[in-house]
Amino acid sequence: MTTDAVALTADLIRCPSVTPQEGGALVLLEGLLAGAGFHCTRVDRGGVPNLFARWGDKGHARSFGFNGHTDVVPVGDAAAWSVDPFGAEIRDGILYGRGATDMKSGVAAFVAAAIDFVTATPPDGAIIITITGDEEGDARHGTVALLDWMRSEGEAMAHCLVGEPTCPESMGEMMKIGRRGSLTAHVTARGVQGHSAYPHRARNPLTALVRLLDRLAQHELDQGTAHFDASTLAITTIDTGNPATNVIPAQARASVNIRFNDTHTGQGLAEWLQQMAEVVRAETGVSLDLTVGISGESFLTPPGPFSDLVARAVAAETGREPALSTSGGTSDARFIKDHCPVVEFGLVGRTMHQVDECVPVAQIQQLKAIYGRILRDYFG
Amino acid sequence: MTTDAVALTADLIRCPSVTPQEGGALVLLEGLLAGAGFHCTRVDRGGVPNLFARWGDKGHARSFGFNGHTDVVPVGDAAAWSVDPFGAEIRDGILYGRGATDMKSGVAAFVAAAIDFVTATPPDGAIIITITGDEEGDARHGTVALLDWMRSEGEAMAHCLVGEPTCPESMGEMMKIGRRGSLTAHVTARGVQGHSAYPHRARNPLTALVRLLDRLAQHELDQGTAHFDASTLAITTIDTGNPATNVIPAQARASVNIRFNDTHTGQGLAEWLQQMAEVVRAETGVSLDLTVGISGESFLTPPGPFSDLVARAVAAETGREPALSTSGGTSDARFIKDHCPVVEFGLVGRTMHQVDECVPVAQIQQLKAIYGRILRDYFG
Repeated sequence: MTTDAVALTADLIRCPSVTPQEGGALVLLEGLLAGAGFHCTRVDRGGVPNLFARWGDKGHARSFGFNGHTDVVPVGDAAAWSVDPFGAEIRDGILYGRGATDMKSGVAAFVAAAIDFVTATPPDGAIIITITGDEEGDARHGTVALLDWMRSEGEAMAHCLVGEPTCPESMGEMMKIGRRGSLTAHVTARGVQGHSAYPHRARNPLTALVRLLDRLAQHELDQGTAHFDASTLAITTIDTGNPATNVIPAQARASVNIRFNDTHTGQGLAEWLQQMAEVVRAETGVSLDLTVGISGESFLTPPGPFSDLVARAVAAETGREPALSTSGGTSDARFIKDHCPVVEFGLVGRTMHQVDECVPVAQIQQLKAIYGRILRDYFG
Repeated sequence: MTTDAVALTADLIRCPSVTPQEGGALVLLEGLLAGAGFHCTRVDRGGVPNLFARWGDKGHARSFGFNGHTDVVPVGDAAAWSVDPFGAEIRDGILYGRGATDMKSGVAAFVAAAIDFVTATPPDGAIIITITGDEEGDARHGTVALLDWMRSEGEAMAHCLVGEPTCPESMGEMMKIGRRGSLTAHVTARGVQGHSAYPHRARNPLTALVRLLDRLAQHELDQGTAHFDASTLAITTIDTGNPATNVIPAQARASVNIRFNDTHTGQGLAEWLQQMAEVVRAETGVSLDLTVGISGESFLTPPGPFSDLVARAVAAETGREPALSTSGGTSDARFIKDHCPVVEFGLVGRTMHQVDECVPVAQIQQLKAIYGRILRDYFG
């Protein structure tokens, strides 16, 4: 008898696991995995529920990892949904609910594939499954905590596959072998307040701010690299709050977000921003204070046997050769890359975070088949 | 017996005439002027009190005008004052109170000078005094209403002197023969919202806005003219209100204030702003909608017999040759210039609008002497 990944996805959707609520999702998975011979440990940290599960021997050289999360983003406007967001209703072959694509179906597919695989053909090796309840939140106590705990316990993965949605439109068209880094800079410009009629007696922080921001926005960070798109910079807000048109304000603030490839490091970009600000400060006399937060460095798992194995399995099950991409936002792969080589493959993410989030049941079955084939090829 | 301009200033300060409150100030002045033979009319409009007073014949070719206002700006932080703002206390020869410099002392000085002059040496001509209760507010129903009423009544001034403070530091050093114009533009940038990780799928309104504003700020409008400083442009606010650093906002707003000399017209500058915005729109695809408000055109009363007469009187009483300036903000002279030649002379304005606003009593007496000499020379 095989494990029904569609029914498992539906059961998980019925667990209202909005970050950081466990909602019964990890309890359900722990029961299933333990029943199939997985050694399970809850690694809860800072109010966040996390689950570690291993089949096979600790420290085995051939330890294949799956990573995912059961937490989901909030429902948003509940009245806008045409179904119960936690009802897991199936209509015309489509399963609806919060987390249907991001990423309860992915978790269900790899858990079902792993259970079926170890039951049918117990491998010479280990399968390690890490599932967090905080990927959608600030993620400080999620996969990071699991990896810390594994290190302290001597648990290790040789390779890891993250089951996040990776396909923009059609099943199988894309996998991820890296991600760009992300950096946010908050700029505070401080000048000298004054009357608009006497700008020479004031020092306008906005003059300096628009000069800096225009230079940053017009600067070409790079032209992309072998595996990465060009880095991008976006001004996300500028705020002053001065209602008086005859007053030059004393202060203004802005934020800038940079998504960067392997040409850069977060630290290098932070220094570049400081230099650019210093030039404008010298030109204008307006102080420009930067606070830079690096939420992730870029990383790449270079194409090779591991990505080839995943790509072959995808092609065999879908008939599509997946593109090796590094596009998009961030994922927990940014933490795992310090532990072992990591790639990502999952289903079509089009409705993630949206009202009426949904997934075709056939896609869940296909995803389970791909994950099962990866395990067979990896241990074969 | 002569009229005591210092006592009159103190009496006016005791009238709490914060815009648009009459506070008893115009009633007091009307009583005094009527007693000296002035024909007085209250020209109240839209909740604003205004006073018209004429000594001599209506329509006389030699009609000299004085203009001023009795309204004052609010006290602000009353606890920060070391005196009662409406107490008119004199300490060590300094008279304290809201309106002490801006401009109850100026009104008191020209009213006292005019009364003494017509009493001592009744001239062959007319003296017209216009005093509004709304110069510090939006000024729509103040001097504008007085001038409209005069036009409809066949009342006219041949020349007018506005008694606003004009001296930056020392009594007599500066008079005004014109003012720059003032224009405010509000810009709304509308793009397409999106995720910071995919800026090519969004259209960032802030990218367009900083490009436009930086170009405007760096543009040299002119280098000044014979009688005017260079025109200036100040960005006064930029606002977005986007708290999410992973989101590119759909919209942002900014305001720009231009103080312009006789090289420009408000309309010409509005067209220039539209053209600059259109260029950036074409470059970025972000729509940039402008709303332009012109609060006053620049104007100049060219140096000549009238300004010479005023300057000679100032020099005779203070020993200083006043500079003929067009600097500073706006004043009601911007309305009067459409009626007759207008210049401005008054005392040192350093403490205007501030806590503990004050004026040396000797300066009030000196100002009255200057205004008296101007009348003698004008009608002499």
